[in-house]
Amino acid sequence: MGSTERIKNVARRIAKWHDAGHQIVVVPSAMSGETNRLLGLAKEISNDPDPRELDMIASTGEQVSVALLAIALHAIGKEAVSYAGWQVPIMTDSAFTKARIRSIDDSKVRKDLDAGRVVIITGFQGMDEDGNISTLGRGGSDTSAVAVAAALKASECLIYTDVDGVYTTDPRVVSDARRLKTVTFEEMLEMASLGSKVLQIRSVEFAGNYRMPTRVLSSLTDPLMPLEEEANSGTLISFEGDSHMEQATITGIAFNRDEAKITVMSVPDKPGIAYQILGPVADANIEVDMIIQNQSVDGKTDFTFTVPRAEYNKAMDVLDASVKAHIGSGNIVGDAKVSKVSVVGVGMRSHVGIASRMFQTLSEEGINILMISTSEIKISVLINEKYMELAVRALHKAFDLDKA
Amino acid sequence: MGSTERIKNVARRIAKWHDAGHQIVVVPSAMSGETNRLLGLAKEISNDPDPRELDMIASTGEQVSVALLAIALHAIGKEAVSYAGWQVPIMTDSAFTKARIRSIDDSKVRKDLDAGRVVIITGFQGMDEDGNISTLGRGGSDTSAVAVAAALKASECLIYTDVDGVYTTDPRVVSDARRLKTVTFEEMLEMASLGSKVLQIRSVEFAGNYRMPTRVLSSLTDPLMPLEEEANSGTLISFEGDSHMEQATITGIAFNRDEAKITVMSVPDKPGIAYQILGPVADANIEVDMIIQNQSVDGKTDFTFTVPRAEYNKAMDVLDASVKAHIGSGNIVGDAKVSKVSVVGVGMRSHVGIASRMFQTLSEEGINILMISTSEIKISVLINEKYMELAVRALHKAFDLDKA
Repeated sequence: MGSTERIKNVARRIAKWHDAGHQIVVVPSAMSGETNRLLGLAKEISNDPDPRELDMIASTGEQVSVALLAIALHAIGKEAVSYAGWQVPIMTDSAFTKARIRSIDDSKVRKDLDAGRVVIITGFQGMDEDGNISTLGRGGSDTSAVAVAAALKASECLIYTDVDGVYTTDPRVVSDARRLKTVTFEEMLEMASLGSKVLQIRSVEFAGNYRMPTRVLSSLTDPLMPLEEEANSGTLISFEGDSHMEQATITGIAFNRDEAKITVMSVPDKPGIAYQILGPVADANIEVDMIIQNQSVDGKTDFTFTVPRAEYNKAMDVLDASVKAHIGSGNIVGDAKVSKVSVVGVGMRSHVGIASRMFQTLSEEGINILMISTSEIKISVLINEKYMELAVRALHKAFDLDKA
Repeated sequence: MGSTERIKNVARRIAKWHDAGHQIVVVPSAMSGETNRLLGLAKEISNDPDPRELDMIASTGEQVSVALLAIALHAIGKEAVSYAGWQVPIMTDSAFTKARIRSIDDSKVRKDLDAGRVVIITGFQGMDEDGNISTLGRGGSDTSAVAVAAALKASECLIYTDVDGVYTTDPRVVSDARRLKTVTFEEMLEMASLGSKVLQIRSVEFAGNYRMPTRVLSSLTDPLMPLEEEANSGTLISFEGDSHMEQATITGIAFNRDEAKITVMSVPDKPGIAYQILGPVADANIEVDMIIQNQSVDGKTDFTFTVPRAEYNKAMDVLDASVKAHIGSGNIVGDAKVSKVSVVGVGMRSHVGIASRMFQTLSEEGINILMISTSEIKISVLINEKYMELAVRALHKAFDLDKA
């Protein structure tokens, strides 16, 4: 939520749904910039602030939002009540700044809903079993919303964002990218993990685990747009076999620009070698994405993996220090200018030829494939970053994604 | 607390006390301007925001301070933990925005103190029995501090303010006003209620009820000043009969500039008339201070009382609407340019001649007394506001308050 003016608009939108007879629980985020401002204060005092105390501070942003939204609803004649996560309570583990939700007590909320009140709950936070405030980390408000919806067995979880849905690919790269009316949970998970930043991946996981139909829609539309229209806007994340599911083979083209590739050459091909290479990398808190190991030649193999580009130098340092000497490998070489492009679609399982069409398309554009990785519902390739947009546009067209 | 730089200074001061072997609980206020900023957001949305929701919002200011202070203590090597009021818990009634503390559970805090930790608790707030966040109203941090000190049976409650103690009168009015080393609880109560705004009156009441020795001292001194010196600075609010009590007859001259006087003329002198006049005024939430009723003449009397100047017009409107017609009084006249000056001193009880010296002093300065009201430890007079400074200076001198 941005200004108080935007909060008033949110209230009008909620009132519209409530007037139509829905019971509503709202999980707003903090006002824009507020979480950064609060964490900035802590950083002014210490470079290494205690996570528990950071959560005490960061959680206040949402506490202010929920109460402001309640006040805005009162002002237009709606009964509403706000709760901090600990008041519900939303119970979490004690991993401060990145806590995970363990359980949500729905009794208090249910009582308010049955009394006709709109219930507003702080996103992003909960309480551990010792009564400490915890936060779920960045983007945690989406996760809270889905978790609360699941706990209350809501019919749908609407997530209002600054985009109007999930697209076949990024419209900034492909101008005729098309908004999807529905997407399956598995596809959404791949899209989110592959760099389509519409929803935090944990919220998608939650939606999947609890089979909670979740709609991504725009918060920038007129709050008084007809309810029927709003209820069918955006993109619904549904479940395979649901009647809403689109039957298109390929759902979208996802991409992640900021990858880096590292190859450890001439690694002895023996058990435990992958762990010896990736263990120190993981210990340094560097996320590893794609991993491939070539066929061994003379008992030696090349071991290649990708990391986020921002972690490239750190990863190289770790490998120089820990791997080279200990496992007797050859040179460690890398490329920090690579991007990942993926074709995603749940229909892929039952259709042959998707991979070959993808490779053919890239070949026709003269784009060299550096790595390939596949799953049940996606094929990803790593390519030189300078070809990324070209690859996305070509694939979008090759799979007819511009056609409804 | 002001900037993060000031928070670091507060941490240094606390560390000094902790190093000297004291167990310490700190009750900081919000950062300056923060409570106003937060309440301002609510006012942008509604002219009449719900008090429960206001408390959700306002309480976050202190929650940020306590955690920032904990982080600042960690940064200089002190173990410290912050708690929101509800985490202690500090239990209050449900009078949101002006709640009263009912009980404080000291078990969690005591455990931390015994483990060597500095405990930092949000001032100004608590939780009602339904788990709602409540605030104590403006200045409530002082009240929280005294209440927490009482619950923990602290040896002394130190209240750091922007003044360096309680003075015989306002130094801005009388340049040779003198800082009092000690003042009794009763005197402090009169000084606070009469307009010396050093401490919120409720915190003084708490100190009195729990016989908690409370010291008012400056937050603006060097945080590393010698502990011995700091421990004896400011003004100690003690209890009559305590060895520290000063024996001076008169403690100070208090005043309140912004009074207004209202007289209802020719009121029928019969039972219930005071209630008929003041009832509607109280119903309009207007505070009434001094009240006098003259000797009746021919079954009619004049009824005079004072209200805060800001409420003068509202009070006149109420009286015009409700009183004049119903009780058959004469004219209602008022004066919105009056001030109250009071001589305060617990010693007054056993000394005659205080009142006459006061009246004589004012008379010698040609100052007319409009109303008089007395209590066990103070004599107050209402005078034309233009003489207020003159009266305060003359009385300060007449009672030798400039002499140590």
